[in-house]
Amino acid sequence: MLTQVQAAPGVGMDAFFTAASVAVVGASDDITKIGGRPVQLLRKYGYAGAIYPINPKGGTLQGLQAYASVLDTPTAPELAILAVPAAATLQAVRDCAERGVRGAIVLSTGFAEAGPEGAAVQAELVRVARTHGMRLLGPNCLGAVNVVDKLVGSFSVALEQSLPPAGQVGIVSQSGNIGSFTMRNMADRGLGVSRFIATGNEADVDVADGIAALAEDPATTIILCCMETCRHAGRLAQALDMARRRHKPVIVLKIGATAQGQAAAASHTGALTGSDAVFDAVFRRHGVLRVRSFEELLDVGHAAVLLGAQRLPTTDAVTLVAASGGFGIMMADAMVQAGMTLPALGETTQALIREAVPAAGTNNPVDASAQMSARPDILLKMLTALQNDANGSTLVLLLALSLYNPRLRCVYLEALEKIRASHPHRLLVLISQGPPDAVAEIRALGIPVFPSIPAAATGLAGLVRLGQLTTLPTAAAYDGPRDAVDPAVFRNEFHAKKALAAAGISVPREEIVGSADDAVRSARATGYPVVLKIASEDIAHKTEIGGVALNLQDDAAVRDAFARLMDNARQHAPTARLDGVLVAPMVRGGVELIAGVSRDPVFGPVVMVGLGGIYAEVLKDVAVQVAPVSEDEALRMIRSLKMFALLDGARGQPKADVAAAARTVARLSEFACRHAADVAEIDMNPILVRPEGEGVLVLDALMVPTSRNPSAH
Amino acid sequence: MLTQVQAAPGVGMDAFFTAASVAVVGASDDITKIGGRPVQLLRKYGYAGAIYPINPKGGTLQGLQAYASVLDTPTAPELAILAVPAAATLQAVRDCAERGVRGAIVLSTGFAEAGPEGAAVQAELVRVARTHGMRLLGPNCLGAVNVVDKLVGSFSVALEQSLPPAGQVGIVSQSGNIGSFTMRNMADRGLGVSRFIATGNEADVDVADGIAALAEDPATTIILCCMETCRHAGRLAQALDMARRRHKPVIVLKIGATAQGQAAAASHTGALTGSDAVFDAVFRRHGVLRVRSFEELLDVGHAAVLLGAQRLPTTDAVTLVAASGGFGIMMADAMVQAGMTLPALGETTQALIREAVPAAGTNNPVDASAQMSARPDILLKMLTALQNDANGSTLVLLLALSLYNPRLRCVYLEALEKIRASHPHRLLVLISQGPPDAVAEIRALGIPVFPSIPAAATGLAGLVRLGQLTTLPTAAAYDGPRDAVDPAVFRNEFHAKKALAAAGISVPREEIVGSADDAVRSARATGYPVVLKIASEDIAHKTEIGGVALNLQDDAAVRDAFARLMDNARQHAPTARLDGVLVAPMVRGGVELIAGVSRDPVFGPVVMVGLGGIYAEVLKDVAVQVAPVSEDEALRMIRSLKMFALLDGARGQPKADVAAAARTVARLSEFACRHAADVAEIDMNPILVRPEGEGVLVLDALMVPTSRNPSAH
Repeated sequence: MLTQVQAAPGVGMDAFFTAASVAVVGASDDITKIGGRPVQLLRKYGYAGAIYPINPKGGTLQGLQAYASVLDTPTAPELAILAVPAAATLQAVRDCAERGVRGAIVLSTGFAEAGPEGAAVQAELVRVARTHGMRLLGPNCLGAVNVVDKLVGSFSVALEQSLPPAGQVGIVSQSGNIGSFTMRNMADRGLGVSRFIATGNEADVDVADGIAALAEDPATTIILCCMETCRHAGRLAQALDMARRRHKPVIVLKIGATAQGQAAAASHTGALTGSDAVFDAVFRRHGVLRVRSFEELLDVGHAAVLLGAQRLPTTDAVTLVAASGGFGIMMADAMVQAGMTLPALGETTQALIREAVPAAGTNNPVDASAQMSARPDILLKMLTALQNDANGSTLVLLLALSLYNPRLRCVYLEALEKIRASHPHRLLVLISQGPPDAVAEIRALGIPVFPSIPAAATGLAGLVRLGQLTTLPTAAAYDGPRDAVDPAVFRNEFHAKKALAAAGISVPREEIVGSADDAVRSARATGYPVVLKIASEDIAHKTEIGGVALNLQDDAAVRDAFARLMDNARQHAPTARLDGVLVAPMVRGGVELIAGVSRDPVFGPVVMVGLGGIYAEVLKDVAVQVAPVSEDEALRMIRSLKMFALLDGARGQPKADVAAAARTVARLSEFACRHAADVAEIDMNPILVRPEGEGVLVLDALMVPTSRNPSAH
Repeated sequence: MLTQVQAAPGVGMDAFFTAASVAVVGASDDITKIGGRPVQLLRKYGYAGAIYPINPKGGTLQGLQAYASVLDTPTAPELAILAVPAAATLQAVRDCAERGVRGAIVLSTGFAEAGPEGAAVQAELVRVARTHGMRLLGPNCLGAVNVVDKLVGSFSVALEQSLPPAGQVGIVSQSGNIGSFTMRNMADRGLGVSRFIATGNEADVDVADGIAALAEDPATTIILCCMETCRHAGRLAQALDMARRRHKPVIVLKIGATAQGQAAAASHTGALTGSDAVFDAVFRRHGVLRVRSFEELLDVGHAAVLLGAQRLPTTDAVTLVAASGGFGIMMADAMVQAGMTLPALGETTQALIREAVPAAGTNNPVDASAQMSARPDILLKMLTALQNDANGSTLVLLLALSLYNPRLRCVYLEALEKIRASHPHRLLVLISQGPPDAVAEIRALGIPVFPSIPAAATGLAGLVRLGQLTTLPTAAAYDGPRDAVDPAVFRNEFHAKKALAAAGISVPREEIVGSADDAVRSARATGYPVVLKIASEDIAHKTEIGGVALNLQDDAAVRDAFARLMDNARQHAPTARLDGVLVAPMVRGGVELIAGVSRDPVFGPVVMVGLGGIYAEVLKDVAVQVAPVSEDEALRMIRSLKMFALLDGARGQPKADVAAAARTVARLSEFACRHAADVAEIDMNPILVRPEGEGVLVLDALMVPTSRNPSAH
């Protein structure tokens, strides 16, 4: 049924944020009740539209005229907030849909999260909503807030004391608690919030809708997203690309990074969580900064707002300044460990610093001594020299406890104000504890203030990542043909490799033979030495049953081997269907890679590449990305391997043909997309990567059909 | 000169903390001057002993009788604080020594940190002090403070507003700024400080003296140490063992972890910093917790004080509880990543939790829902069930912003007070932001409160480490013979291995021969196949000049190889002195390790072990420890390798004889100590580790004499 299709990300989301009238279904006079709070908050914070409390008793409610049904209101409400018990929700949704409501927020619980019965009702809610073109947020959610227009469709306790100041930060969260905590903390830092949306069960509106809605909201310049899972990979990618096209940084706190966290997430959301490594890869691809804690989310988010998208750092270079050598050392350690670099300062810069602060050590980190804060003009002179330096680095100034000292506070504030005025485009960041009002004054100058050295190091590395957002190439979705694969590919490596070869992947010349005579003929045509391997769809591990003979030098050896392999197969795998014996050239030299495709429950076909053998096994030295990947992307994956040096000429070996390896991975990923309906898994192991210019050869390959893979979708 | 020897760590340090009279040399009426501040602070905070301001002008000074010289005071001061210019300091120190002063604090700068002239004066200060048995703190330091007795021998700005409350935390820091920052932050948390000592240039008193003094101070129960370098490895080890014997946790913030940080540290302290990895190993060996930031130092330090040495966790098991599933997932991620484990809760526990909180998810992390804080008795019932669980884990309760809500604050406080009373020995930790007074109330119950999830995860892992302090075996210092090594060991691998064999290390049967005939005779005696290698002290890299022939199967091959090797050597290394050709068995199979000894500028002979070949080279997969190491310690080093699985039966290989490998490393480390005067470096590469019970064989070895190593000491 066409009308049941989920809308594209963001479509119709304005209903939740720009509605001119709101019905609260299940409204209550009791402001501690879920049905009482939205009415109270809409009034308290001054929502300018019409508020229609809906309650069967009618009368007045919190001083407003109440209506028995959403069908009775003077005008059709654009938005409805539903706070009735689960059992009454379906009828309320039907009424809303019939009345032409454009968006419904279902705050109530008792749906999919409560079991199969609730899930069935939830499905019906969605059917009704989609049939009528009404977007549905929730159920089991904390709703949506447009802070600018005081449209509060939520009962979040974070709104109890006050509405956050209106501002640029958009927040979308699956968990209402986590979203509320983020909103409250942002507000406590004096940072304005534009919109807040908590998606809960995501029956219709999901996190992708939230990101898309924030991407399109002119008031929002930065998007903070808290997520536990993703219910639709394609929609997430679309939404992230929307944000990127509008140059809005997206910072994601994605939880469930460990097996234990994922287990907890699965039981909490009732959804499969997908591989955390694949989430990482997707975020990287779409220019999203993933943070690991609230503190990082808040610190980086705050700094990004202060700098604005135009002033994000474009280099990882930092110049570090502290009044004490010890602090300089600590900063250097933390910054380098976070991936930042410490360029040297120019001779002129160093001379100018010494002119201002004779006792200063002028290496980077600069040991500026207590002299630097003796007078504002001294500090300004030093800062000017530093900001004029040609190395283009971000200047990081550590104040320790100085802001607690009233005299020093004045010195710093005066100098910082002047340096910001004289160098508005240069980057300056502070590390400081201090009285909140002093920190706020400095932030008001557009200078990010991090509370600690580790926070600054992690935060700056994150800002650099966000600064690279616009230069990142866009990943294309797969738009090639999608068709069936010859079922023979699942039978043995011969057919698997034949199919891969047809997809542009290099494999050795190979033949399946049924007799010793044919084996000898084939070996002569291939050229000695050769390899013989048993060919059977029922024997996955050929070596273990003696099904492989390597390095055969002549006809006699081939003849012997043929007989031995067939004997071994009959003896150790008596029920296996044998296709014969594979004859292939004996190939040596080069470095072994492995590559493969697996099916992620969230993201679908995922391609993997790693160093072969022990490296992949013990070191877990593999890179993953959602298919398809471009050759460039595949190259970045290969270069990201810990043991990449093995391919790059370590220990005097020739450099390996990584370009050909990348090409192979890209072709594999396209093959996986083309045949996603049939092929659940592909293993290419080993792939021999020969010296530069000599290409690669896939020596063995295995494919698993989707039918054998119960988790495929 | 015997009297010039530095005292054992801690000896005579009481002069700085328990002096009954103090002279301030260079005392001033101006309390903003370095010479004015100690007088002011001693008076302001109520030091009970005699204060003698010393100033050539005499008269009164800050209301006290001043004296022209320390020689004129009514009684001999036990402690002198010197705040005169560098040029006048030597005479002042002489006067102090003559007068029988037991400790002198030199606050002035202009000594070793200022250049060679200053260094010469500094050396003379030390000579005078040691000759008279007077301990000397500094120069260029922030001095010492006994908070309990208000004995302030410092001009730290951290003491400007107030003296920290007297308490249990001892602080020793090389950097005065870092130490002051730590003291101030501890005080701001309401934590009492016992003693503070900043060692500056460490001309006489060093960080080891500080640790030892705190270890012996009955008021101190925990030692926080900030260090950039170590000037005497043996003293540091002694001091750490003193603290350990007294069950006092030592937490070290050692800075200079990266090359950039170390470069900054070297230019800051004028001392070599030593390898950061070796510092790590030494801290591990002595049960010291190394932290990576101030925040970690303060959080873990605070928690350790609240728990006391008796209540430190002895297991890495945690049970996590939050009012929201999302927070539980975040906690699970952070805890697992920090190395903690999440045991399941017993059936009874889970049933009891559901009885108290029907909506709770009772897996670990426990999703306790907002119900848990509905009433104190509900919360108490749940906490009681959790603390009664047999899994013995640390209970971690996350409150997010709850303490800001007055009602919830009361609920939590009441329940927490009761659970502490009913379960005084069980571990309970909170994660919470909140009003400082609410957090302080909870901490007053002996419950550590961490400000964030990451801080709690890192902090708990640190507390577990401190909890293992007492079970750690003590490392013995080397007390075997120290003698000369046969200089032949530096000539070639044959003699190097012979010496190692004499030290109990297994090497193959080998012989050096001078003719092809002897080579054949030797090969027959060894048994075919054999290896031939050129033997020369001038050829370090034999393979590169064609000086190695492997896998020789018979007499003819040996004869050929002998001639070829000699030819190659004459051709490619015409000036090399040749000892002949080494004949050794061709040994195969097993896993290759490397091990070696190098000379750390701080810690002396350091032993290293790693997986051979590419692993050590690309992955830097090596473990280090200061020599000597016991077999147990060597085994732990080997087990700590990332690629240990290679030795432990990965990929169906037999387990390797790691016990024999550990024995080899231990013997190597003893050899290095015994011959430390002669041998600067040893490389054993490769070491063939054969299957369990079959031992190891050192196939090649190289030794470098100290004379070739300019950085040796």
